[in-house]
Amino acid sequence: MNYRMIFHTTGKVAIVLAVLLVIPMVLALCLSEACWWAFAITIGISLVIGLVLALCLKPKTDVFFSKEGLIIVSLAWIYVSMIGALPFVISGAIPNYIDALFETTSGFSTTGATILTGPQIETMAKGLLFWRSFTHWIGGMGVIVFVMAIVSGATDRSMHILRAEMPGPTVDKIVPRARSTAKILYLIYVGMTLIEIIALIIAGMPIFDSVVHAFGTAGTGGFGIKADSIASYSAACQWIITVFMILFGVNFNVFYLLIMRKFRSAFSSRELWIYGGIIVVSVTAVAINITKQLPYTQTAGDGIRHAAFQVASFLSTTGYTTIPASSSVNALPLLSKGFLFMLMFVGGCAGSTGGGLKVSRVALLCCAIKKELRRILHPRNVNAVKFEGKVVSDETLHGVTGYFGLYMLLIAVTFVLLCFDPANGLSVESNVTAAVSCVNNIGPAYGVAASGYYMYSWFSKLVMTFAMMLGRLEIYPLLLTFFPLTWVKR
Amino acid sequence: MNYRMIFHTTGKVAIVLAVLLVIPMVLALCLSEACWWAFAITIGISLVIGLVLALCLKPKTDVFFSKEGLIIVSLAWIYVSMIGALPFVISGAIPNYIDALFETTSGFSTTGATILTGPQIETMAKGLLFWRSFTHWIGGMGVIVFVMAIVSGATDRSMHILRAEMPGPTVDKIVPRARSTAKILYLIYVGMTLIEIIALIIAGMPIFDSVVHAFGTAGTGGFGIKADSIASYSAACQWIITVFMILFGVNFNVFYLLIMRKFRSAFSSRELWIYGGIIVVSVTAVAINITKQLPYTQTAGDGIRHAAFQVASFLSTTGYTTIPASSSVNALPLLSKGFLFMLMFVGGCAGSTGGGLKVSRVALLCCAIKKELRRILHPRNVNAVKFEGKVVSDETLHGVTGYFGLYMLLIAVTFVLLCFDPANGLSVESNVTAAVSCVNNIGPAYGVAASGYYMYSWFSKLVMTFAMMLGRLEIYPLLLTFFPLTWVKR
Repeated sequence: MNYRMIFHTTGKVAIVLAVLLVIPMVLALCLSEACWWAFAITIGISLVIGLVLALCLKPKTDVFFSKEGLIIVSLAWIYVSMIGALPFVISGAIPNYIDALFETTSGFSTTGATILTGPQIETMAKGLLFWRSFTHWIGGMGVIVFVMAIVSGATDRSMHILRAEMPGPTVDKIVPRARSTAKILYLIYVGMTLIEIIALIIAGMPIFDSVVHAFGTAGTGGFGIKADSIASYSAACQWIITVFMILFGVNFNVFYLLIMRKFRSAFSSRELWIYGGIIVVSVTAVAINITKQLPYTQTAGDGIRHAAFQVASFLSTTGYTTIPASSSVNALPLLSKGFLFMLMFVGGCAGSTGGGLKVSRVALLCCAIKKELRRILHPRNVNAVKFEGKVVSDETLHGVTGYFGLYMLLIAVTFVLLCFDPANGLSVESNVTAAVSCVNNIGPAYGVAASGYYMYSWFSKLVMTFAMMLGRLEIYPLLLTFFPLTWVKR
Repeated sequence: MNYRMIFHTTGKVAIVLAVLLVIPMVLALCLSEACWWAFAITIGISLVIGLVLALCLKPKTDVFFSKEGLIIVSLAWIYVSMIGALPFVISGAIPNYIDALFETTSGFSTTGATILTGPQIETMAKGLLFWRSFTHWIGGMGVIVFVMAIVSGATDRSMHILRAEMPGPTVDKIVPRARSTAKILYLIYVGMTLIEIIALIIAGMPIFDSVVHAFGTAGTGGFGIKADSIASYSAACQWIITVFMILFGVNFNVFYLLIMRKFRSAFSSRELWIYGGIIVVSVTAVAINITKQLPYTQTAGDGIRHAAFQVASFLSTTGYTTIPASSSVNALPLLSKGFLFMLMFVGGCAGSTGGGLKVSRVALLCCAIKKELRRILHPRNVNAVKFEGKVVSDETLHGVTGYFGLYMLLIAVTFVLLCFDPANGLSVESNVTAAVSCVNNIGPAYGVAASGYYMYSWFSKLVMTFAMMLGRLEIYPLLLTFFPLTWVKR
């Protein structure tokens, strides 16, 4: 085990976090908000930790294997969540550390689940609101990917880290070197975020709101700055966010291919078509189901807009909503609730910022089922299934089915642990959807949890914090870090 | 495809069904109930169909493969459910054929979900009530296994059929010949049912009630004859049923080994210990959770009794309840509801009459996860996982993970289709639990469905009928029968 390399990289992450915290601090200073010193203290702490780790523990060798990659990613995510929570605690905005940890993990993991109530959000300092949404933006593309993109010293072996952090069953290197891949991905990410900010400003949204909501959309996070999320903004703003939620759920390779003018390869992605198909079917079903059924969907136009927004939000695992404060997701007709619940499991495409199982994994699961059906019919025949034009290897299929088992187990364990919570109003529905929502990094849930997670006990909040992080890192890195065999010397 | 063999065997099944229907007819005659002629007409119909098929379509060759086995099993189950529903319709007890089909499929698939209301059950003729519960008993061990056990002509190739019908990831031949295996299994089944009947009579239950409830327990079905299921019987009766629900959820191989005095092999079954462990943990948790919390659990003794009964009922997928009519499963504390919901997925042991995923499949899923974790840590190492003292082959693990994917897909599809139902009072909770309950052949669900399934539309009832049958046959046989590739000539 290359311990020095692990701690050295964690040190780099700490320094980068300190640098990133400067942005909300400057914003708070400009707005003369008292919370600036909460950022200053946190920057100081992270800088000291970072310099000690990065300077004192220089790696003797840069040789490392996939298990070091997994541990580095886990430690980096645990670190940024734990330290990133400090500004909320120090400023007194979220006095309880566990609550702040939940909120920050929810941010970095791009979940968007909150323990704040509507009035608490609306009265929070802008510096803190900015930091809350900025964590989405950082977490969306990956903490380590960011560090790799800007800090030199990444070697070819860094692909191990990229693989451990990027969601999806397979990670393609866009270009041969890991660092260049990370840079290209970040450039696309920055570019699309800027376009969304400009579009929202043109549509009439205030500048601060535009930036914050673009961060929430880009990371498929979902933290807003109003009690009713996006409901009080204009229809134009809602449509812009809908389009960008869908775009940020697409595999970034597609955008890279489009920039390279390889249109045919870009649109030959089977995953992209399945993703589009799911959206069209779901929006149609939900739109027909809600039009004229709710006070705010009396016209077909309103029905389609709200259907498209909610479907894009749940499928891309963002979690914004346009349901007015006078209503609730609980008041949606059953069919819409059922469809949205199912979309929670699917998630975005592999290689996007979205959470969930990922479209390609769902497709590969169907391939595995098809293969098993064929095997039962003709046990002795050779049978191969194809996806994206290539024969899918047995190893990939088993990886996907094994992951699915672990994923369902994680949801089940989270659900059972939440049932120990004695808080009033919790139900099987609220706890099932809360568990699914956290593991898939979505945010909203049904039942009492539709209004936030503040009613849960500290134990439940810790469980959900862990579930969100496991979900974002696709379980293995974090689980293996706590798996004794990982630490055994070969 | 050996069509003659398929229809010849279906003919035999039809004749056997006609013979079995004589028992409730005789009972109805003895009690001078008018419904006897409904049985007589059904017997006539099934006898004519059976004789035509069995006599006119004698197979030219007895060569057949696994796919013929799958189709024979599917047709047999569709046949008995469709014809077995006729007495309810002809007698006028359940005038709607779809309702009667739901009820009969629920019976044969050992689900125990009912579309009848409490008063309808309590006023039904005893002949019909007997038939309703008798379907559990026949379905518990398998329709075809029964035919094989009593009708001659089964060859060594019949193992294909036994495999297709018996639940669980692997089916062991107890003795070399399939027919002998079927006979031994049925003898154990009959013996245990008789012991339960006698025990219940000694405990003070009326003879008719004892027989009906023993059928419901043996098949892990759950149809009762009272509006409040088992709640109004004495504590002794409840304990007897608890014990037998647990026993009928055990792999019958264990009983065979016990009869053969191979005690060491019997108790070395890892699945048996896991099954026992789940029961102990769940009963403890539920008992602590409900004692003094509900009007009917004011003493620790009552708490333990109700906890043990409900856990045994949900885990073995029987579906009886001792919750008084004044309360409901919905009124249980959240932790108990959560635990019971999770038990719905597990089910009994492989080779038992219980439904669900089966304990051994859950254990093998954990093995697959463990193997995948090890593979990620050390991609190049050879790693083998063991279960029941043997190395588990990759084929078995992939079979189990593939099945799990298909199983979750079936639950998801059932859930979404149920959400199209416009009936009042349905919720995400009622529909999720109804889908899980039908696919796992349990019976009760939460929400409005806790009081039965009568409020669902005819479409939903058909969906659930299909889901129950798919669940009982472990999906593949019935699905492959509707899979075009199955009917393609090689």
